[in-house]
Amino acid sequence: MARLGYYFGAGPAALPESILLEAQSALLDWDHSNVSILEVGHRSAKFMALLQQAEADLRDLLDIPSNYHVLFLGGAARTQFSMIPQNLLSASKAHAAYIISGLWSSLAFEEAKRFGQAYAIEPGEVCQPDTAYVYYTPNETVDGMRFSDIPDTGNIPLVADMTSCLLSEVIDVSRFGLIFAGAQKNIGPAGLTLVIVRDDLLAIKPKSTVPTMLDYRVHAKHHSLYATPPVFQCYMAAKMFQWVQAQGGVKALHDINIAKAARLYAYIDASPYYQAMVDDVNARSRMNVCFSLENKAHEAAFLAAADACGLRGLKGHRLQGGMRASLYNAMPMEGVDALIKFMNDFSKGIN
Amino acid sequence: MARLGYYFGAGPAALPESILLEAQSALLDWDHSNVSILEVGHRSAKFMALLQQAEADLRDLLDIPSNYHVLFLGGAARTQFSMIPQNLLSASKAHAAYIISGLWSSLAFEEAKRFGQAYAIEPGEVCQPDTAYVYYTPNETVDGMRFSDIPDTGNIPLVADMTSCLLSEVIDVSRFGLIFAGAQKNIGPAGLTLVIVRDDLLAIKPKSTVPTMLDYRVHAKHHSLYATPPVFQCYMAAKMFQWVQAQGGVKALHDINIAKAARLYAYIDASPYYQAMVDDVNARSRMNVCFSLENKAHEAAFLAAADACGLRGLKGHRLQGGMRASLYNAMPMEGVDALIKFMNDFSKGIN
Repeated sequence: MARLGYYFGAGPAALPESILLEAQSALLDWDHSNVSILEVGHRSAKFMALLQQAEADLRDLLDIPSNYHVLFLGGAARTQFSMIPQNLLSASKAHAAYIISGLWSSLAFEEAKRFGQAYAIEPGEVCQPDTAYVYYTPNETVDGMRFSDIPDTGNIPLVADMTSCLLSEVIDVSRFGLIFAGAQKNIGPAGLTLVIVRDDLLAIKPKSTVPTMLDYRVHAKHHSLYATPPVFQCYMAAKMFQWVQAQGGVKALHDINIAKAARLYAYIDASPYYQAMVDDVNARSRMNVCFSLENKAHEAAFLAAADACGLRGLKGHRLQGGMRASLYNAMPMEGVDALIKFMNDFSKGIN
Repeated sequence: MARLGYYFGAGPAALPESILLEAQSALLDWDHSNVSILEVGHRSAKFMALLQQAEADLRDLLDIPSNYHVLFLGGAARTQFSMIPQNLLSASKAHAAYIISGLWSSLAFEEAKRFGQAYAIEPGEVCQPDTAYVYYTPNETVDGMRFSDIPDTGNIPLVADMTSCLLSEVIDVSRFGLIFAGAQKNIGPAGLTLVIVRDDLLAIKPKSTVPTMLDYRVHAKHHSLYATPPVFQCYMAAKMFQWVQAQGGVKALHDINIAKAARLYAYIDASPYYQAMVDDVNARSRMNVCFSLENKAHEAAFLAAADACGLRGLKGHRLQGGMRASLYNAMPMEGVDALIKFMNDFSKGIN
């Protein structure tokens, strides 16, 4: 029952077929409970055990120190754009520094300005006094850019939107004050946001009233069960964490992800027919390879021919144009090879 | 492949098996797209068409007037507890009246007090001047209580938490300013909240800064696609709306729901072994039938025996105790009959 072809969508994104098959079974009868994973109570012993195991597995995969909380929050990652300034700015530290590298960091910056004194900095630039945190986006999905280094912010907590890169590469969690990630790239279906937050950041007294559902302290205290969580997305995340373990862990996927992106960029760079949108090799995203056709008039034909070959989801972001091949954890090297073969055939008029 | 028994959980709750079977297929390959419903992009033409159809179907089912917006929001309904005062209170109308009838309305009241001048009233009581809205919870899942009448609030907009009753009974939407409902009772899996809001309420200028993701106006303007919505829950809601249509619409389910609850309460009232927790017949919830055993020492044995008979999810809310049989739309009369037969057998020592 294998599916045909490969899905290169930027998020929601491809998921491993083995997990989809397992979820199919849980949809009618989760683990011989005679209750669907879509029906089971979030306070049932069985679901609470799943959530605890998911947290333990994520802690293991990322080597998360014990002074960090892991939160499973319902809804989109974009909610973090206000949660971060609302929770982390205080009367004594009312400033926040934002490194702007693309669409998502710039939107986060705009939202932060509504809740406090946010200002833009370049990586490595010295911060103003009273800066509560430095915010950046290690991988920008729309622009296809990544940071090759973690910015050094000294004692100022670093906040990172890892929506499109969490679990795709080895990271040193202890370098960060707060990490968040929407699920729909490397974690599961849309509708869940993971937050990893150091406990001293929960001791901050916010400047103004934080809506209870936007308060990290409330979710930490209730172990993500203050309100009904998105049960199915939590289930899928738990399965995905086990899948990452089965692949050999984050380090193994990290190596594969480097190889996948390198192979695709190398083909693009060698072909006169295609052009990488990001020139700086060190700034090129491994997760989202953005490229254009030398002749833009062929774009629609390219997408149609790719689709006919079972290579779907290649259209670039509506604000960016061109093509985008997203190579998250669930994309195997075979998918990259199939894409390169197609691109080569198309450039020669074979399709 | 029918499942054994019935699931009486209060939410997440039972879903029609026909929809679970359809979702199973979409999990691997949604409607012959070779992409899973868990992977498909929220801006794909196919998903946007689904969301539009879902809204059209809901408008049809509830006869929603054209001056109301329908929003599909990610996350739990509890977020509404702050969204409502944050969006609806203004400098000129800074007060909000809350009718407290149980746990959920009391929690909503507590949150509103954090954002404005909220005060408690009895149904029918005259409001203070400058009252922006009156809030109530037509059905209280924990307490097993319902309102038999819609409170008359004159020109003051009425806000209703219909999480546990939307689509279970015929309502006159035009009597309300805003209706919201978490999905996990009559709409789909947890992780989605529906909001139906009259357009004049979106013209209010809020008192203070509203987080963009908590701003009804933003979601209305972007037709629920400002951020990535919980795609799978939207799909399930769309299927559920079609299922309600196939049952004959809300009126047909309304009649069945009255009959289901009446049959169970009649049995409980006639049995010396069980006791309904709500005495006032008019205040008894049709969705959540709360009852206790005359001899509380038998509760654990009751739950274990019920489970062995395939009747699951009957334990009352942790704050309320006793038993609770939730009879949402997806629970057929056969489930009620099976429960009554079991209760009768158990009371006679047969199980």
